[in-house]
Amino acid sequence: MNRIITIGREFGSGGREFGRRLSEELGIAYYDQEIISEISKRTSLSEQYIQAIVEHQPSFSFPIHIGRSFYPATSPVFDQTMTVYQEQARIIKEMAAKSDCVIVGRCADFILKEYHPFRFFIYADMESKIKRCREKGPEEENLTEKELKQKISGIDKKRAKYYEIYTGHPWGDKLNFDLCVNTTRTSIKDIVPVIAKLFA
Amino acid sequence: MNRIITIGREFGSGGREFGRRLSEELGIAYYDQEIISEISKRTSLSEQYIQAIVEHQPSFSFPIHIGRSFYPATSPVFDQTMTVYQEQARIIKEMAAKSDCVIVGRCADFILKEYHPFRFFIYADMESKIKRCREKGPEEENLTEKELKQKISGIDKKRAKYYEIYTGHPWGDKLNFDLCVNTTRTSIKDIVPVIAKLFA
Repeated sequence: MNRIITIGREFGSGGREFGRRLSEELGIAYYDQEIISEISKRTSLSEQYIQAIVEHQPSFSFPIHIGRSFYPATSPVFDQTMTVYQEQARIIKEMAAKSDCVIVGRCADFILKEYHPFRFFIYADMESKIKRCREKGPEEENLTEKELKQKISGIDKKRAKYYEIYTGHPWGDKLNFDLCVNTTRTSIKDIVPVIAKLFA
Repeated sequence: MNRIITIGREFGSGGREFGRRLSEELGIAYYDQEIISEISKRTSLSEQYIQAIVEHQPSFSFPIHIGRSFYPATSPVFDQTMTVYQEQARIIKEMAAKSDCVIVGRCADFILKEYHPFRFFIYADMESKIKRCREKGPEEENLTEKELKQKISGIDKKRAKYYEIYTGHPWGDKLNFDLCVNTTRTSIKDIVPVIAKLFA
């Protein structure tokens, strides 16, 4: 199986843990936050600003994939956003060209489609995602159940919007993935060493 | 992992092959058409008639799972349909109680929910399903591309209706499954021996 591996994930489902463990099991590169750092180096924009752009996508209201002919009048913020997106796509392609790797999020499944990556989607039910967030994230400690649920849904809504704008496909649609793993009942620690054998 | 294993599947995606190979790999029972035969024995209805009922669900226009209080005036056909459904659920539970097994279709994931089965969903894109149907089914030989596509969609529409009436959940929703396997690019023959190790 192709060892260019992409991981889409719902917030709180353990997608990063899945990706990290899988890369360790296979002894291949793992890219997540590293992509933001690399964009920052290349564009001289701060990591924080880039993070905000890729999470909030200011000024996009049309499908990027349709192409340049639909561009509205540009603005400085819009230009920066485009720069970040283009740089991100370039970096992801460079990373995949360099060596086998696991890339989490960032529409890598779409950006790397010529590589025919093996595409995972990691998801879970809300109760399980709330539990995982409580365990992992100290900043979630003071949120009520309702607030945390809103936070999780909100982040996924942004991811969905980002993915859909960027790829033209609905986010989380299982047809865009080779294997969808529900971490509600299945332990990531237990499943990854088995799944890794697909790439042996 | 629990070795009571259920398999939901899109028509033409290779769900039966996946289930059969998995049961062989694990050395456990495999139930598919056997369930129809057993209902036939117990009800003295013909297998063909039972097949028609579980595929076409005559006279259901309300959710079964809501319970008896909503029943309309019954008819002989309706009574037979209910008998078949109830018998099917009973048989599936008996099978799961008897030994580890793989059960394909028939809402077994829902019927066996107290057993916390491991729930697969097998799917593929339309092109791949058409190809598989052409290879497997001699009766598809004379259908045009459009007719075969309509047949595949039609069968899945019936499955979706059956599942939704019976369980109250949308059919094929990944949240109702532990692992969703897209057989478009992934060979069933290659993936099953790896996946089987989850249950070792």
